[in-house]
Amino acid sequence: MHKVLIIGAGGVGSVVVHKCAAQPDVFSEITLASRTCEKCIEIAESVRKRTGQKIRIEKVDADSVDELIGLISKTNPSIVINTALPYQDLTIMEACLRTGVSYLDTANYEPPEEAKFEYSWQWAYQEQFTEKGLTAILGCGFDPGVTNLFCAYARDKIFDTIEYIDIVDCNAGDHGHPFATNFNPEINIREITQKGKYWENGEWKYIEPLSESMIIDFPEVGEKKAYLLYHEEEESLVKNIPGLKRIRFWMTFSDEYLTHLRVLRNVGMTGIEPVEFEGHKIIPLKFLKELLPDPSSLSEGYTGKTSIGCIIEGLKDGKRIKKMIYNVCEHEKAHNEVGAQAVSYTTGVPAALGAEMFLRGIWNKPGVWNVEQFDPVPFLEKLGERGLPWKITDL
Amino acid sequence: MHKVLIIGAGGVGSVVVHKCAAQPDVFSEITLASRTCEKCIEIAESVRKRTGQKIRIEKVDADSVDELIGLISKTNPSIVINTALPYQDLTIMEACLRTGVSYLDTANYEPPEEAKFEYSWQWAYQEQFTEKGLTAILGCGFDPGVTNLFCAYARDKIFDTIEYIDIVDCNAGDHGHPFATNFNPEINIREITQKGKYWENGEWKYIEPLSESMIIDFPEVGEKKAYLLYHEEEESLVKNIPGLKRIRFWMTFSDEYLTHLRVLRNVGMTGIEPVEFEGHKIIPLKFLKELLPDPSSLSEGYTGKTSIGCIIEGLKDGKRIKKMIYNVCEHEKAHNEVGAQAVSYTTGVPAALGAEMFLRGIWNKPGVWNVEQFDPVPFLEKLGERGLPWKITDL
Repeated sequence: MHKVLIIGAGGVGSVVVHKCAAQPDVFSEITLASRTCEKCIEIAESVRKRTGQKIRIEKVDADSVDELIGLISKTNPSIVINTALPYQDLTIMEACLRTGVSYLDTANYEPPEEAKFEYSWQWAYQEQFTEKGLTAILGCGFDPGVTNLFCAYARDKIFDTIEYIDIVDCNAGDHGHPFATNFNPEINIREITQKGKYWENGEWKYIEPLSESMIIDFPEVGEKKAYLLYHEEEESLVKNIPGLKRIRFWMTFSDEYLTHLRVLRNVGMTGIEPVEFEGHKIIPLKFLKELLPDPSSLSEGYTGKTSIGCIIEGLKDGKRIKKMIYNVCEHEKAHNEVGAQAVSYTTGVPAALGAEMFLRGIWNKPGVWNVEQFDPVPFLEKLGERGLPWKITDL
Repeated sequence: MHKVLIIGAGGVGSVVVHKCAAQPDVFSEITLASRTCEKCIEIAESVRKRTGQKIRIEKVDADSVDELIGLISKTNPSIVINTALPYQDLTIMEACLRTGVSYLDTANYEPPEEAKFEYSWQWAYQEQFTEKGLTAILGCGFDPGVTNLFCAYARDKIFDTIEYIDIVDCNAGDHGHPFATNFNPEINIREITQKGKYWENGEWKYIEPLSESMIIDFPEVGEKKAYLLYHEEEESLVKNIPGLKRIRFWMTFSDEYLTHLRVLRNVGMTGIEPVEFEGHKIIPLKFLKELLPDPSSLSEGYTGKTSIGCIIEGLKDGKRIKKMIYNVCEHEKAHNEVGAQAVSYTTGVPAALGAEMFLRGIWNKPGVWNVEQFDPVPFLEKLGERGLPWKITDL
């Protein structure tokens, strides 16, 4: 029986709260904290209606280590689940360290002033978390998260050596808006407008943004054009999958989505440098975020499926084999269960389950870890009943 | 020998100053006033280099009638040429009225809070200008302006009855930017995102924005797809061309331009309602304007031509005839002459010539007038030598 503190009341935070509330034998007391209380109240109300459970609510500015320390001290949780902005990973980790509480998140730290996705800042906490006997679980959403665990499962249970990994991510859903992002538009657009990057034969290779694509046959969704992007799980997987020769990440985008993105870049709306406007400094991308639909508002009426997985090729008993491990998630089903679209759902379910793994003592080891550094089996055994069934097929 | 005051130092204002400076026998003293002195200094420097003439510079907030009265009293001009924003037409007319100075502009008044293009507010000054013996010349750019005068010429010199007018406007130039507007982006986008409207059989007919198009063979440019828009000259021409059955206005846009516009509308960037952002009220379209290239900056390296004119059909001696009256203007030639692109040039040249018509006593009659209410012949006789040669062809 454990107290949990969830920081961040966006689409993912809402799913985490709902899923924790559904496991009252693990999470005996749930506190949700955010900068805006209204969002917390809405989520708590939805949980109350669905499960009868009461969620505690706190207000916090997750940029402030002092406020976070005050909140964690007051709440006294066994673990903090961070579903706030990636900009806030370090302040939350710092506050956990100073209050002696373990930590879990779903996306790596990014400095606000520069779109730079890497684990270096968070990995730098390894020694301090180890010394204090605390666990920090990094990137425990779907991708990163479940995709890392699919790879770990393939490493531990299927292959002798994994040589090639392609992580493939398709959202074939329709939210009915001409343009909207499925998670924070600011983070989404920063990610996509970056140079592409993949790892091959021991080194990172760079390509122009969205300049390479491939038709991929996604389970239950069919053939879609997917674009090579850099995605953060590649950074840890190249360290934790021995013998790996290449890892790439592919994501689908519709032509319309890419047209919108191209235009918004052309006119400067995706920029993160402040622009002087009527005496204020305005960051175009932040203003664009203000105009776009809130991702958590998309779930009503969202149809279709996400299909995300890993295509893994390597050797077993001297023979070359190729497998796909994947999950398919329906937007409508996720909405009916927890009032969320599938992109939030597939990220939030693993976060709640990862926290459960920690609280059950299965993923409890001092230090800072990516999820493939834990045993994937007990997590994947539970994942289906928590809402994300997965399959393995031969290719 | 007359003093002239030009208010507004954008692309059009710059052309007007250069063209007035080229007629020192008409304009003996030229003052340019704007909210930002830097732009005035740049223009004055360009005129000095090209002609050796000295331009006086003043600072003014054209939203303030008091400041305008102070400026006009100090400058004591024979006419004020308004090349400021359409939002400022009324304050400038009001100041002219109170100081007893005649007035000329190139675009009708628009209320800032609503994209509404009509002459009602300016026509309401008819009695006051008449009483004071002052002349106000409205819409003396290219379209409105020269297009009205082409129609007046057709009415007075070619046709017995004009039945159909299609005003056709093509900019087949290339400025090298993925998206930029050729005049104030805010005004341009407000105009284009409006419902389309044309006049037929005594009434206005409305269509969805950009929903009707037609392939038009533009002189010296060739076939281009043009879209039906409402344009302000239609409002006065239906009053001043007797017997008219239909008038429409068509403008070309590239697919890329329309794609950019569609996306910017989709995400809400063309909106004129303020959005609450970080404690400030931000009008999306104004912020977009800030990001887009300044139209006056496009002229360097701008290639290609504009081709604008009127296709007029009607009766002469009982026979049905159809004529096109048009001008073709080269961006590069305009840039070499006055450092402007052709869209600014074709608007600024008629404004300077209209002021000259007034100062020469040819277009000097008390009241508020659209240009087709003056004699078009002396204006059109000079237009070619001022830089905008025109032609008539049979269709």
